[in-house]
Amino acid sequence: MGVDLGGTTAKFAILTLDGEIQQRWSIDTNILDDGVHIIPDIIDSINEHLKLYNMQPSDFQGIGMGSPGSVDVNAGTVIGAYNLNWKTLQHPKRDIEAGTGIPFAIDNDVNVAALGEQWKGAGDAAANVTLVALGTGIGGGIIADGKLLHGVAGSAGELGHVTVEPNGYLCTCGKRGCLETVASATGVVRVARDMAEEYAGQSELKQTLDDGDEISSKIVFDMAKAGDKLALMIVDKVAYYLGLGLGNVGNMLNPEYILIGGGVSAAGDFLLTRVTDYFKQFTFPNVRETTKLRLATLGNTAGVIGAASLARK
Amino acid sequence: MGVDLGGTTAKFAILTLDGEIQQRWSIDTNILDDGVHIIPDIIDSINEHLKLYNMQPSDFQGIGMGSPGSVDVNAGTVIGAYNLNWKTLQHPKRDIEAGTGIPFAIDNDVNVAALGEQWKGAGDAAANVTLVALGTGIGGGIIADGKLLHGVAGSAGELGHVTVEPNGYLCTCGKRGCLETVASATGVVRVARDMAEEYAGQSELKQTLDDGDEISSKIVFDMAKAGDKLALMIVDKVAYYLGLGLGNVGNMLNPEYILIGGGVSAAGDFLLTRVTDYFKQFTFPNVRETTKLRLATLGNTAGVIGAASLARK
Repeated sequence: MGVDLGGTTAKFAILTLDGEIQQRWSIDTNILDDGVHIIPDIIDSINEHLKLYNMQPSDFQGIGMGSPGSVDVNAGTVIGAYNLNWKTLQHPKRDIEAGTGIPFAIDNDVNVAALGEQWKGAGDAAANVTLVALGTGIGGGIIADGKLLHGVAGSAGELGHVTVEPNGYLCTCGKRGCLETVASATGVVRVARDMAEEYAGQSELKQTLDDGDEISSKIVFDMAKAGDKLALMIVDKVAYYLGLGLGNVGNMLNPEYILIGGGVSAAGDFLLTRVTDYFKQFTFPNVRETTKLRLATLGNTAGVIGAASLARK
Repeated sequence: MGVDLGGTTAKFAILTLDGEIQQRWSIDTNILDDGVHIIPDIIDSINEHLKLYNMQPSDFQGIGMGSPGSVDVNAGTVIGAYNLNWKTLQHPKRDIEAGTGIPFAIDNDVNVAALGEQWKGAGDAAANVTLVALGTGIGGGIIADGKLLHGVAGSAGELGHVTVEPNGYLCTCGKRGCLETVASATGVVRVARDMAEEYAGQSELKQTLDDGDEISSKIVFDMAKAGDKLALMIVDKVAYYLGLGLGNVGNMLNPEYILIGGGVSAAGDFLLTRVTDYFKQFTFPNVRETTKLRLATLGNTAGVIGAASLARK
């Protein structure tokens, strides 16, 4: 079983050992009262659905879960998941194993999405796959030689904080020029506002900004696809930074696939081809020839599938 | 047994299973006749020393070897090792196993040095260690979660080709701004020549260059240590690029240690403290607090020790 815990909903899936989804459901995440209801709600929902499907705990190899926040994979604990109102140390492994009688494993949400895409998505079950998730922020997960990397303190795969512009924008992390500041959904808007100020030509996007209307990364990409010159310059700049940052992922790790997921990746091949051009410019020959960029394909189900893979023996 | 094959010598060591060196010797590498003598010479030397020490093939778990060139770890073959005159595919595994009766494993020389430093050197046997070797070029090796990374086509760990200056110097690899172009021994000299041209103040280093005398990275560091202002500016620039490049290693992989080895690292703490300052500037908080830069400690013996570790069961 895989559980993808998010700030709005918790998604559940029961899968075969081959990763085929048999059942799916979801519940709302109740973040009231410092999030104390979240784990009991998950336990109740699992037990109800086992009853519903006439299944026993012994029918499962285990439950895997992806969680926001800082996850201690070995202890099975989470701290600092602010969109869940979890400010103090939580014990999902201890509590969910006690509440369901099923072995439990946990990792952070983006790592788990990377496992899902690697196993059943665009990663083609290759041994070396990196996912970069372009959302409000940027997260990432690295599978190398078949293993998800964590590093010494759980920060391996934090591709959002790779420095791509040494004197660039200040990031929420406190340092400058992080990939997240220029290529997340909020980063695209930031780049758009800055470039619009200096742009003198005709542009519907500039007009929109001058009118004081809100924009989004989706609006920027849509206008670029429609030929807006300013929007095209913005997309080019975002693609440049992604090509530089992901190029260095390639130069260091030489994965078979670097998968681009998250909301911004909805821009599709229009983004992918531009990022790939810069990626080729910023990688040395053997990586250029053997590491491929792809769009992630699983969307919302990457989390439950990857989470389930944590439970595999 | 570990073998460290280089263009000038092949070094050998017999080690205990704990990595303690019991015997060491070396032979000259005979690169004549397209390097056809190299493997037979290695086999003869191993067999002679086994006789000398009154040992049997069954006394060994195996032989591990580090080699220049492009190594196929699974096939046990090497191609394109130009300092050995090996232009065509070589079969060290097949030939050395047949010639000695001992199981054999091989990897590239920098990966093997990384394993050595991780096991018995500055890596303190930690599960997450990266080595960057600053020599004529720059190589690297990454151990993550206890495993040496190779990537899909053997290029994982090629830290010399991480892009640190998008519009920088052209590298031998064909792309621009590789770390190797500014922080290898030849890179330091290149940076020195360029900065000297624009430097107007008093400097013994500038005088040396203006006199047409050859300089080396060692001369640059020695003059910087003696207070030469131009040399200090050059060292600062080299440290900046190393801090940026290794900072991104930290941001992606969060190793416990990033070890700086190779000839340029002879500059010691003078270099390390300056690189560390920039490393802290270019890493986000959790990495800044948990990933440490260190000087490699094994020097020439990293190769034989790491090679031997390939043979461990």
